[in-house]
Formats: sequence, C-alpha cells, structure tokens
Amino acid sequence: MNHLLSSRDISKQEILKFFKKADKFLPIVLDKKKLKIAEGKILATLFYEPSTRTRFSFETAMIRLGGAVISNADMNATSSSKKGETLYDTAKMVSTYADIIAVRHPSAGSVEDFASGSSVPVINSGDGPGDHPTQGLLDLYTIHKNFGKIDGLTIAMVGDLKNSRVLHSQCELLLNFKNLKFIFVAPKGLEMPEEITKMLLKNKFAVSEMQDLKAAAPLVDVLSQTRIQKERFGSEEEYKKYRGIYIVDSNLMKICKKNMILMHPLPRVDEIDVDVDSDSRAKYFEQVSNGVAVRMAIIAKLLDL
Amino acid sequence: MNHLLSSRDISKQEILKFFKKADKFLPIVLDKKKLKIAEGKILATLFYEPSTRTRFSFETAMIRLGGAVISNADMNATSSSKKGETLYDTAKMVSTYADIIAVRHPSAGSVEDFASGSSVPVINSGDGPGDHPTQGLLDLYTIHKNFGKIDGLTIAMVGDLKNSRVLHSQCELLLNFKNLKFIFVAPKGLEMPEEITKMLLKNKFAVSEMQDLKAAAPLVDVLSQTRIQKERFGSEEEYKKYRGIYIVDSNLMKICKKNMILMHPLPRVDEIDVDVDSDSRAKYFEQVSNGVAVRMAIIAKLLDL
Amino acid sequence: MNHLLSSRDISKQEILKFFKKADKFLPIVLDKKKLKIAEGKILATLFYEPSTRTRFSFETAMIRLGGAVISNADMNATSSSKKGETLYDTAKMVSTYADIIAVRHPSAGSVEDFASGSSVPVINSGDGPGDHPTQGLLDLYTIHKNFGKIDGLTIAMVGDLKNSRVLHSQCELLLNFKNLKFIFVAPKGLEMPEEITKMLLKNKFAVSEMQDLKAAAPLVDVLSQTRIQKERFGSEEEYKKYRGIYIVDSNLMKICKKNMILMHPLPRVDEIDVDVDSDSRAKYFEQVSNGVAVRMAIIAKLLDL
Repeated sequence: MNHLLSSRDISKQEILKFFKKADKFLPIVLDKKKLKIAEGKILATLFYEPSTRTRFSFETAMIRLGGAVISNADMNATSSSKKGETLYDTAKMVSTYADIIAVRHPSAGSVEDFASGSSVPVINSGDGPGDHPTQGLLDLYTIHKNFGKIDGLTIAMVGDLKNSRVLHSQCELLLNFKNLKFIFVAPKGLEMPEEITKMLLKNKFAVSEMQDLKAAAPLVDVLSQTRIQKERFGSEEEYKKYRGIYIVDSNLMKICKKNMILMHPLPRVDEIDVDVDSDSRAKYFEQVSNGVAVRMAIIAKLLDL
Repeated sequence: MNHLLSSRDISKQEILKFFKKADKFLPIVLDKKKLKIAEGKILATLFYEPSTRTRFSFETAMIRLGGAVISNADMNATSSSKKGETLYDTAKMVSTYADIIAVRHPSAGSVEDFASGSSVPVINSGDGPGDHPTQGLLDLYTIHKNFGKIDGLTIAMVGDLKNSRVLHSQCELLLNFKNLKFIFVAPKGLEMPEEITKMLLKNKFAVSEMQDLKAAAPLVDVLSQTRIQKERFGSEEEYKKYRGIYIVDSNLMKICKKNMILMHPLPRVDEIDVDVDSDSRAKYFEQVSNGVAVRMAIIAKLLDL
Repeated sequence: MNHLLSSRDISKQEILKFFKKADKFLPIVLDKKKLKIAEGKILATLFYEPSTRTRFSFETAMIRLGGAVISNADMNATSSSKKGETLYDTAKMVSTYADIIAVRHPSAGSVEDFASGSSVPVINSGDGPGDHPTQGLLDLYTIHKNFGKIDGLTIAMVGDLKNSRVLHSQCELLLNFKNLKFIFVAPKGLEMPEEITKMLLKNKFAVSEMQDLKAAAPLVDVLSQTRIQKERFGSEEEYKKYRGIYIVDSNLMKICKKNMILMHPLPRVDEIDVDVDSDSRAKYFEQVSNGVAVRMAIIAKLLDL
C-alpha cells in the first residue's frame, strides 16, 4: 500500500515530483477553481487531535480536485476508540468507506499503526511529537518556490526547537539536499534534540547554535519561526528574558537580507509582530495556499490521478 | 471586500434585490432541486457558538446552489483560538481555502474583526447579543412575501425584547421602510433597549408598549414572538405571572386579525402552543425555507453568481 | 411518509427487494465508484449519540449514490435540544433542508417522535436499546449472500444478549423466515429478554440456551458474536470466569463447520481474536461493505431513485 507516513520515507526524486505537481495545482488554489480528476473519490479526515487548519487544508485540496469528504473533526470525543477499538480495526472500517484517509493523532507511531489496517492510502497529518510530513513538504516547497533551489541555503530555526515536530519533519526532509547551513536559536531547555543535530552533521551540514536572534538574523536565507508556549519556561522571569529576543518585528526584519524569507507554521501568538505581515519576505500566509497545492499533489500521487 | 456584517449596512434597494433573488431561489428550496451556479465554490462555516439550525441553513443554501462546504460546528472546542490565534489570522487562513465564509461568534463585533483578515466575503451569522442580519432579512422577506409590502404595517414584538438579537436586527432593517407602528410586549426588565426605541421614533415610527398580549393581539399585522428563558425572571412567581400572558395559543389566535402573520425565529419551547402550528397564519416553519432562499440570495450576491 | 423506523415494519418482500438492490450497489462500494442517481439530493445525519461507523456508512452511501451530506456528529453537544426544542420541531426544520434524514438517538422511540415532524423520509440509525434496523438488514444480507438463503439455518447469538439492540433487530427481521434454530449463549444476567424468546417460539423457531460456546460452536451455520462490557459483570471473578468461554479464537474456529460464518457488528475489543481475521469464515469486515450497499439500497428505495 502506498502511504505517506514519515518524512524519512520520501526520496529527493519524490520531493521534486511533488513540487512539480504542486506548481500545477497552485493556480487552482489561488484562482479557487475546481478540477474533476478526483470525481467519485472520497477523502476521510480522522482527527484524533483537532486541527481546523490542517483538516480544512486537506478537505479543500480534495474538493478542488473534484472529490468528496467524510469528516470526523474530533475522533476522541465521538468515536469507538473510547470503547476500546484498535486503530487497526478502525482503519479496516474507514478504508472500506473512503479512497484515501488523512489521520492526525496525538501519539507518535499511531498513524503507522492505523495504516497497518488500511486497504487505502493513509496520510500522516501529524502524529504527536513525531512527524508532520505534509507540513514539512509544504515548508520545503515554499523555500524552493522562492529560491528556485534548496541546496546551499542558510536556514535558521527559532523558538521551541525541542517540541516542534514541524521543524523536525523539515530537518528530515532537508537531508535530501546539499550544503545546507543550520543556525538553531532556542532558549535553554528547548534546544533541538541531539539526535537531529547529529543526523544533520552526519549529512555534512554545518550546524551552529546561537541564543541571540539579532546575531543570527543577518546571516540567513530562511528564518523558520515557531510558537513558544509560555508554560515551557521555568519561571515568569525566564519567560520575560527570552520573550523579547525571540520576537520577529519590523526592526529585526531591517537587519535581515533583502531576499530572505520568513516562515511560520501558524498559529502564531506574538512571536511575529503583525507589522511584519506586509513585508514581502513574510511567507507564512503564502504557506497556507502552498499547503493546499502540496496536499493536492500528495492526494493525486497516492490515488494515481 | 464585499461582506455582510451588519443589518445597518444594508440599503432598502439591496433588501429588495435580496427579496427578488430569494423569490427566484425559493422554488429550488421547496422542490429540493440543485443549481450549478456555485459549482467549484467552497463555503466555510465557522461556528464559535454552535447552531445546527443556522449552520444547516447556510450549508443547504450552498449545496443547492451547486457548491461545496467545509465545516467547523464548534470552533471553540476544536480550533487554534485556544492557542491564542487572533480572528484576523484565522480569517487569513480560512479565506485562502474557501470562497465565502459564514461566521457565528458569541461576542458582538467579533465577526467584523474576523472580516478584517479575510480575502473573501464574510457573512455575519450571529455575533452574540449584537446582530444576526441574515435572520433579520429572512424575517422581513417573510413579511414582504405575505403582505406584498412592508410599509404601513403594525408589528408587535413579544417576549424577551432586551436580549433578542433577532428582533434588534429586524428593527435595524425595518428602518428602511415607512409608516410602521410598533407594539412592544415585554415583562418588566426584559423591555426593548432604549436606543432601539429612540432609533425607531427618530425614523417617525409609532412605538407603544403594552404588558398584555391580549390587548395587543387584535391590533397587529405581524406578531413576532420570541423565546423567554425562565432564568431571566427574578423569581418563580414572577415567571408564572408572565408565563401565561405571553403564550400564543389558539384562543389568542381567535382574537387576531384574519390576515395577520405569526413569526418566531425558533427554537420555541412553549411560548407558541403546538395547536397553533396548523393555523395558516403561523409562519415560523415557512421562515425556515425562506431562510434557505434568502441565504442562497446572499451567497449568490456576494459571490457575483 | 415513507420512513424506516422499526425492524418490525419491514416485510419479507421488502427485505428481499433490499437485498436485490444491495447486490446491484455492492460493486459500486467495492470498486469505489460513484453513481449519479441521487444528484441534487441531501442526506442529513443527526447523531444524538455519536457513532463514526454508522454515520460514515450512511454518508458514504449517499455520496456514492451521487448526493450530498449535511452532518451533525454530536447533536447533544451542539444543538437546540439543550434549549428545550422538541424532536418534532427539529424534524420540521431539518426536513425543510434535507431530502432524507438518518437519526441516531440514545432513547428508544425517539426516532419515531422525530419522524412525526418530518416531511421527508427518516431512517432509524439506532435508538438506544430499542432498534437498529439498518444494522439488522445488513446482518441478514450478509447471511443471505453467503448461504443464498436464510430459511433452515442454525444461528448462535453470543455474549451480551440482553443489551444488544443489534441482535434484537436481527431477531425481529428473522421472523420473516422459516425453520430457524437459535442457540443463545450468554452469561447469567445477560440472557436474551424473555419477550424475544417468546416471539421466536411463537414463530415456530427452535430456541435453546447454552452457557458453553464450545458446545454450541460445532452446531451453527451463523455465529453472531457481540461485545460484552466488563462493567456488566457483578464482580471481577465473574468476569474472568466468562471471559475465556466467550472469546472466539482460532481454536474455536477449528471445531466450527467449514461453511459457517462468523459475524460481529463491531467495534470489537477482544471477544474475537485477531488471528481469526484471516479465516475466510470471518465476515465482520465484509459486513462493513455490505452495510454501505444496504444503506444505498435503503436510501434509493425511500427516495424512489
């Protein structure tokens, strides 16, 4: 069975194919048109952890391809998992109904368990701290679209690097490219996990760590900002100390390169000032439309459309 | 951007255009047919306060126009608003997916905040005690369809006039017409807010207040009944005292004019006796189909279909 | 109005017609195709008690027939029933929107109350301990498809026979056939209700009770297994005592007939061992696709498609 379960499973060739397909679908997203290539196909969205953003992105992708959707926005509240049904059995059932299934789950590995019972393609739509390959792909697509390449770029990742599955998926996918330089900017205790740093070094990437975003900013082609939850900090003082130095505002943008790009998986709280939204280098809302195009590409590929 | 945010924004000319469009769509609703004019378009329904009635009305309208729907029936339970995302950012996202968005929110002004971030038309589907313009429009449409006009009618509004946003929206929209006479029938403490009464008087409408529905009933062309929540009353005795005199039953209908109409936004509890349902002057279920037709008209207008 | 409210209402002739229609629709389900016969029709799914399995089955059926869906997966959490609206009024409203309505409710008789207000066909999708006619029909369809007949078969029902509305519906529907032999295998306190046993005896069926599944297994053509909730037992010891003797595993399958079938309405916990899944006599996942085909047949019949 042809699933999309892990960022690790995707080869460079596949990534570039997804980009090419996404290029074809992006005008459909931007002009809000509808194709007919998925006519008669059903996408099931099963979210064991609610996410309107990701669920709507998949559903929009399927509808703009011409297909239909059956949806459970909150599987934990309203499904038989409460009665003790295994993910395997749930997958046997739902794959009898749907042609393709997008699953989000709060615990790592659960989407793979689910896929073991499915007779149709399953897309990992985020499994807890584990992986979020479609988000990773749309992030790389955004980079590629803006630079025409990925090789050789300098990428800063900023904020809660420990808990951001989005950045972990980005790193996994970036292993397919060459000569990357990483700058990790994180508060103490929220640093990038060692196994990821090792993995990047093993791939002959340059990796450095900084605590001051202002020092890193002028150096980067890509700035990947993330949300930090206040609760992650040991104390209110700790929080206040870091708060300022991790916020991207128009002052920070002034010291960045003219052709760099600023990304964020959203939702944001205040880690990017709204003044920055109008800066042409801010790409976080562009990521939203890129996300639909990439998910159309993924659905189309898995369904052989 | 072409939104429908407030009853105040709608001119008489626009109201009459909506009615004309609704006349065209009503047979589609009653005969349960489907058009193709919204083919390829997506409506997003975002309900920060659940309402099956209003959500289904919008979704049915979009489907009967030929479009598709993405839906979040309970945004508070399952969305990033919990994580601190602003309505502005949510709107940026959802308007990338959908062609048009129907938003309900428990606090006044929130739908306007949302619209400030949206790149597609936003319809206020009720914002707390504020406004509910599409309900107001369907109420006026029901009046107009039954009398062929609105000018000159005598309209009683009965029940919890203080908290009924539906009646407040009705009043705002009725300012576009002439020579109306209002009779407000409300228990002490639940009277129509003074600013609305003043606004009507300024428009040269006649406004009187009564506490006895039986005295008002024979005088009216339109009786707009509302639900009173028991909790609104100071005491059980207070409740019992008012309870009887605010219930519309077949005895009350006997003293009403032969060609008057009885309206209610639903849900009702016991403020209209079920015996009245078969009275041809009872229009509250007719309002449901009128609501779909009016919302088809609104969607069609905002999308330039 | 043409509803499907109770297993009792369905004649043998109708059952066989449903089977014939389901035979026609089953390849659509298995090949995941889409017809156009319900084009322009809307199914509303109203679940006052959540069930992803049954809701998705109905929605898939409607989509594969060519129709559209409006859905409330959790009416109790998000509807006006909280405000005191009657099922009658809710039905008046929803039947104005939809062409056909599938209702699940936790209390027996509620779907019939609902239907009294509906101007379109209503399908009982399970009403508490009462009835679940579409599940009963798909169970019988599964038997009929495998044996080419139902008359004369020996059917064991195993587990919580007291509380299983699925088995009660099965029994009601089986009254339409001849010369059936029933074996009831249940722990003390969870036996089949006397009125059902009496009803079967009155129909000249043979009924016997056993406490040992191993003794019953070699005799049966159909083994209908159900989930027993641990809480149903008086004590942990009681539970342990029964637990073993009611589990179907590959050892038990060895002593069963070669052409018998094993059914289960799902979800299962551990009352059928996963080793049995690969046994060709295990039909519980086949029941899932049969369920969609049968529901397509029911919708098509009620809508005169």
